[in-house]
Amino acid sequence: MTQGSTPETAAPAAGSTDGSPRYVVGVDYGTLSGRALVVRVSDGAELGSAVHEYAHAVVTDRLPVEGGASLPPEWALQVPQDYRDVLRRAVPQAVAAAGIDPSDVVGIATDFTACTVLPTTAEGVPLCELPEWSGRPHAWVKLWRHHAAQAQADRINTIAADRGESWLPRYGGLISSEWEFAKALQVLEEDPAVYAATDRWVEAADWIVWQLCGRYVRNACTAGYKGIRQDGAYPSREFLAALNPDFADFVADKLDQPIGELGSAAGTLTAEAASWTGLPEGIAVAVGNVDAHVTAPAAQATAPGQMVAIMGTSTCHVMSSDRLREVPGMCGVVDGGIVEGLYGYEAGQSGVGDIFGWFTRTAAPADYVAEAELRGLSLHELLTEKASAQAVGEHGLVALDWHSGNRSVLVDHELSGLVVGQTLATRPEDTYRALLESTAFGTRVILEAFRDSGVPVTELVIAGGLTKNHLLMQIYADVTRLPLSVIGSAQGPALGSAIHAAVAAGAYPDVSSAAERMGRVQRAAFVPDEAGAAAYDPLFEEYVRLHDHFGRGGNDVMKRLKALRRKAIAGKSEVVTVTADGIARGAATPREASAGGEAA
Amino acid sequence: MTQGSTPETAAPAAGSTDGSPRYVVGVDYGTLSGRALVVRVSDGAELGSAVHEYAHAVVTDRLPVEGGASLPPEWALQVPQDYRDVLRRAVPQAVAAAGIDPSDVVGIATDFTACTVLPTTAEGVPLCELPEWSGRPHAWVKLWRHHAAQAQADRINTIAADRGESWLPRYGGLISSEWEFAKALQVLEEDPAVYAATDRWVEAADWIVWQLCGRYVRNACTAGYKGIRQDGAYPSREFLAALNPDFADFVADKLDQPIGELGSAAGTLTAEAASWTGLPEGIAVAVGNVDAHVTAPAAQATAPGQMVAIMGTSTCHVMSSDRLREVPGMCGVVDGGIVEGLYGYEAGQSGVGDIFGWFTRTAAPADYVAEAELRGLSLHELLTEKASAQAVGEHGLVALDWHSGNRSVLVDHELSGLVVGQTLATRPEDTYRALLESTAFGTRVILEAFRDSGVPVTELVIAGGLTKNHLLMQIYADVTRLPLSVIGSAQGPALGSAIHAAVAAGAYPDVSSAAERMGRVQRAAFVPDEAGAAAYDPLFEEYVRLHDHFGRGGNDVMKRLKALRRKAIAGKSEVVTVTADGIARGAATPREASAGGEAA
Repeated sequence: MTQGSTPETAAPAAGSTDGSPRYVVGVDYGTLSGRALVVRVSDGAELGSAVHEYAHAVVTDRLPVEGGASLPPEWALQVPQDYRDVLRRAVPQAVAAAGIDPSDVVGIATDFTACTVLPTTAEGVPLCELPEWSGRPHAWVKLWRHHAAQAQADRINTIAADRGESWLPRYGGLISSEWEFAKALQVLEEDPAVYAATDRWVEAADWIVWQLCGRYVRNACTAGYKGIRQDGAYPSREFLAALNPDFADFVADKLDQPIGELGSAAGTLTAEAASWTGLPEGIAVAVGNVDAHVTAPAAQATAPGQMVAIMGTSTCHVMSSDRLREVPGMCGVVDGGIVEGLYGYEAGQSGVGDIFGWFTRTAAPADYVAEAELRGLSLHELLTEKASAQAVGEHGLVALDWHSGNRSVLVDHELSGLVVGQTLATRPEDTYRALLESTAFGTRVILEAFRDSGVPVTELVIAGGLTKNHLLMQIYADVTRLPLSVIGSAQGPALGSAIHAAVAAGAYPDVSSAAERMGRVQRAAFVPDEAGAAAYDPLFEEYVRLHDHFGRGGNDVMKRLKALRRKAIAGKSEVVTVTADGIARGAATPREASAGGEAA
Repeated sequence: MTQGSTPETAAPAAGSTDGSPRYVVGVDYGTLSGRALVVRVSDGAELGSAVHEYAHAVVTDRLPVEGGASLPPEWALQVPQDYRDVLRRAVPQAVAAAGIDPSDVVGIATDFTACTVLPTTAEGVPLCELPEWSGRPHAWVKLWRHHAAQAQADRINTIAADRGESWLPRYGGLISSEWEFAKALQVLEEDPAVYAATDRWVEAADWIVWQLCGRYVRNACTAGYKGIRQDGAYPSREFLAALNPDFADFVADKLDQPIGELGSAAGTLTAEAASWTGLPEGIAVAVGNVDAHVTAPAAQATAPGQMVAIMGTSTCHVMSSDRLREVPGMCGVVDGGIVEGLYGYEAGQSGVGDIFGWFTRTAAPADYVAEAELRGLSLHELLTEKASAQAVGEHGLVALDWHSGNRSVLVDHELSGLVVGQTLATRPEDTYRALLESTAFGTRVILEAFRDSGVPVTELVIAGGLTKNHLLMQIYADVTRLPLSVIGSAQGPALGSAIHAAVAAGAYPDVSSAAERMGRVQRAAFVPDEAGAAAYDPLFEEYVRLHDHFGRGGNDVMKRLKALRRKAIAGKSEVVTVTADGIARGAATPREASAGGEAA
């Protein structure tokens, strides 16, 4: 389904009077759909957009081919053709919605979920599109939230720590099972034939650019954050051989590729891609990027100390700095990872809006649902309204926001949620507010880790769907004691991509100066209330005490409960797992709800 | 409202053919209503019953008189006339429903909530029924769940511990704010005029017997459990003076009274009470009793090692033993407290059915409510059905059952609930089952305390409304590894009272032999499943670890959260408190949902 719309912020498309570059297109590839946005180069005005939902969404049950194999728990695949369809459908529709002449478009840029990665031939053909491989699960795109390579990730981390690999602290001490190396190693160990047939192991962020310009340029962002590229190098051949002798040449044979800095052009639009999109052949195609990171310039937040929190189902924090520091529990620090010339830091919270959604879906009583319907409110709006009537601390609760695990600063997905303080007088809005607050406390823990590591945060810039909850925003301002700025666009990633397109097209000298003109932010939209901030301090102390007790080994009950859960489910029924030669029966692991993506 | 019914268990009322005693009446006074039950002496057959709901229920807002004073939080009063109305309405209606000749009734007995207590004149007239006192809150009946005497209870405990009072360990080390001394001390300190006008400070359990037979006999059960009577004596004059010099003569002046053993006759039915009830003047009136304790003989569970758990909104545990031991955290041990000649032990869990009710009321989503309605199930039935499909440990959760605080073994009402392990995949039935299990774990902690103190429990006999939940019963059998017997009557307390009436009337030599004939129990209705029991052991270990961490000082977060809650509410608005000369404004304490009563 593709839907086009003309945003309210759109100004009439003016004809070019001075021959200067006019329009760019940003395309944001999310977990379930892709969005194209047409933006005016001179001022960033959003003129038209369109969304195309992927026909195959996320493949978790069975391969989408005739007689397709069923998939084990924790698997999450996607279909490359769905990505091309965004170019074919959403881009022309956005251009039409904007009412502009396509020939006035001077550049296109994309951003993607990450690490979403696929095996291709040397020419960039996905193995899953070749008949001889399409029946093999490992030939398909592994979505960021494919979580079946934990065993490989564990081995990467153990061996890296034992060998004292210098790159490990650049990732807060832990490499995720979601990233390029763990996922590739899983392919090698579970289906060596697919691994052998893989010429290139490509981030989808770069594959889509390859489709647009016919050149494979590896972007600096994912190469660093997801590909363990640090100081111009990848993990050594010796390290890879220690993981698995057959993995020794993975970097040299399948991964290494010239790097493109963010904002530069990867190439120009091919005739084929021009025919898909309706855009002029030969316009600039920007180097690929990641949805969270590309949002920073859209919010005019590329200077040191400006941390952007993209708050949706999960939260991703990105911040640039001129200093290289090792922040415990961050996701990573990458030279030029957000803007060229600065170190880009990333941290994250695995569950934020997802937790609020889970609560309203599973714990809102029928009378609240009826009241919300009667008054034309969403359950979130109703619970927020009721929670707003409370004084800080009135609910008597404190919660840990680990329902999807903890990405920063504990980097532990075996953790889980906790609520303490409920009584027979506890109402749904009490628990809802405690969950809102728990995510703010989680953010403060991250901010304090950055401060204590010498990379202080001076401004918090919020983007993403949760900005519309003003109670939540005020809680964040009070808990962090920081002024909160709010991005001025509801389509931050697509606007950020458009900014990169403009730079790639030469309309601006660099991303920061383009952001100055094309980005939008409301500065200090929420400021800390000193009474509220003071009232939150003792609650934050309680949060930290529980955080450290349950998160740092005081009581590993959460991990043991997950192990008991897996054992209980395995005892009930068998499920399939994929082995080297196909499908075999084996012990089950529970099918958890997915953790949030970068800016999902 | 009074409703009569003929129970399904009723046999036709046979005429007396041998002149032996025929029928007795048991009356059970609960928190909101009183129930009368007509029982055949020979075999305990329940022939007819009727319930009368108190017109004034529980008075928490305002005195039920013209221009009545408003009450502060934590107060809970009742109206004596409501108790008499049960005699006037429910008793005749039960006799009518039974279809018997009232002249064939040979005895009546009552049981009551405790500690429910009132100030009277020397003749037993409640002060609140005298015009000069009816406008004073402290002149009324204080219901068991009146929780406004915590400051007095704290002082009692501190001073008793400092002085090394020998009776303190008989109550697990703590005297409750619900009991006779704390409540009386509150009267003295907040309204000394009412205290001065009080001739007798009377348990409602004894006051109703006084109404029936015209004699004030203090029953051994409440005198021991609620009145701190141990080894034939009360706390000393020196101790009382240390609490408050004006309290020194409380025992001598207002409390001390001849003790009646359970099962003996306090007297005979007066002409006035005969006119109320329609029963023959002169029949035996048994000594008063408490709802939980009187249930033991109804379940044929009066021998050492047989612990009766009366499971409703809260759970009360009672067990007799020939050994006197000091069990940490028990509610009390009283010589003859359940049956004459044995030591009666009591323990309790403040919240059980109340917690399940709170969950279904506040956390069951709309689609569950719709499914339950469609299928004609209660929400409890639906959640239980869904939870039954799980293997032990599958939900990945463990909870602490302290939403109403902890009565045994921690004896701390400042504790609160906790759930750990929730993820985005957690469903309502998962949390519901974890709450069911948490109360079973709480029971096991109590059983282990008794075992470790040399008073082992060999059989668990369950009475009360929760017996109908078979999943819950099986969980209790598995968690405790004990065979579960289930009482054979839905009206355990009233049947227990009827047994006491039969003994008081001389139909049986003692309560145990009467219970043998008149009580009913299904032995080993649920037996432990070894696989389930083994699977629960690691979960119980997690419960104990959390129990000790949060309950024994590892992290006093629950108390600090309650303090923060009180402070937050106090900062929002003022509420009234009662002082010596009436009503004054002051700091608020939150109005918590009440903890459960004895067998409420």
